[in-house]
Amino acid sequence: MEVNFKIRSATVADVLEIFNLILALAEYEKLSEQVTGNVESLQADLFGDRPCIEVIIAETEELQKIVGYALFFTNYSTFLTQRGIYLEDIFVLPEYRGLGIGKSLLNSLIRVAKDRGCGRFEWSVLDWNEPAIAFYQRMGAEVLPEWRICRISL
Amino acid sequence: MEVNFKIRSATVADVLEIFNLILALAEYEKLSEQVTGNVESLQADLFGDRPCIEVIIAETEELQKIVGYALFFTNYSTFLTQRGIYLEDIFVLPEYRGLGIGKSLLNSLIRVAKDRGCGRFEWSVLDWNEPAIAFYQRMGAEVLPEWRICRISL
Repeated sequence: MEVNFKIRSATVADVLEIFNLILALAEYEKLSEQVTGNVESLQADLFGDRPCIEVIIAETEELQKIVGYALFFTNYSTFLTQRGIYLEDIFVLPEYRGLGIGKSLLNSLIRVAKDRGCGRFEWSVLDWNEPAIAFYQRMGAEVLPEWRICRISL
Repeated sequence: MEVNFKIRSATVADVLEIFNLILALAEYEKLSEQVTGNVESLQADLFGDRPCIEVIIAETEELQKIVGYALFFTNYSTFLTQRGIYLEDIFVLPEYRGLGIGKSLLNSLIRVAKDRGCGRFEWSVLDWNEPAIAFYQRMGAEVLPEWRICRISL
C-alpha cells in the first residue's frame, strides 16, 4: 500500500475526528475504562480562551481522512531552566502503520521543539509496547529506566 | 527539633534561593552533571512575560529561610480531556526533613489542583529512592509500574 499524506496543525473542524482517535488509542493501550472525557472540553482546551494543548495531524491526500495525530503541551526542566515539549499522545490507525506516518509526526514535533528553543522533547511509553520502544529508539530517543510516574487522581 | 514554617507562593525575591535548592536537588539525585540552567532564565520562566511554571516554598518562621520548594506546571490528560498539575520538583533540605514540610508542600498542591478543577496530580520518582516512594504512597499516590519516560535531547 502506498498512501500520500500530509502533516498539518489541527483546526477546530478536526476535533471530533481527533477525539475518535483518542478513543482508539485508549483501546489499543487497554485503558478504555479510564476515558471519561468528551469532545466539547477537548475543543475548549485546544481552541478556547485559554488553550493548554496543541495537536498536529496526519491526513491522507486523497480522502482527507485523519489517520494519525500527536497531541502535546509545554513542560519544563529545572536542570536546564528551559521549556520542553511533552508529547502526551501519538497514534496512527493500525491499518496505516508502516508507512512512515508516525515518523513524520515525531519529526515534525522535533522541528517545532527546536524552533521554539526547547531543551528536550519527552513522552512516555508502556514497557510492554515493544514495537513502540524499538521505533522510538530508532528515532534517537533514550528510554529512561529509573523513573516511575506517580499519580493522585482527584 | 521543632521548626515553625509556612508555605507560600514564591516571589521574584526568592528566585536565587530557589535556584540554589535546584542545585541541591540535582546533587541529591546524582544528576549534577545535567544542570546547565541559570538563575536569569528561571526568573524569566517564573515571572517574565510568558510564565510557564509556578513555585511554592516552605519558609521558616524565625529566619525566613527557604528550606523546601515545589515547582510545577499544567499538564493534560486526553482520556479525561482535563488539565492536571505536574510536579516537576519537590525538595526539602536534608536537615529539615521529618518535620512535615514535604507533606505540607504536597497537600498545598493537591489543594491547588482541586481548586483549579484538575483531574490528576502527577510527578515522577527515581525507582531507587525508596524513602520518597514510601512517603508518596502514604500520601495516597499510585506509583505506575508500566510507564517509561522517553527523551530526545535537542
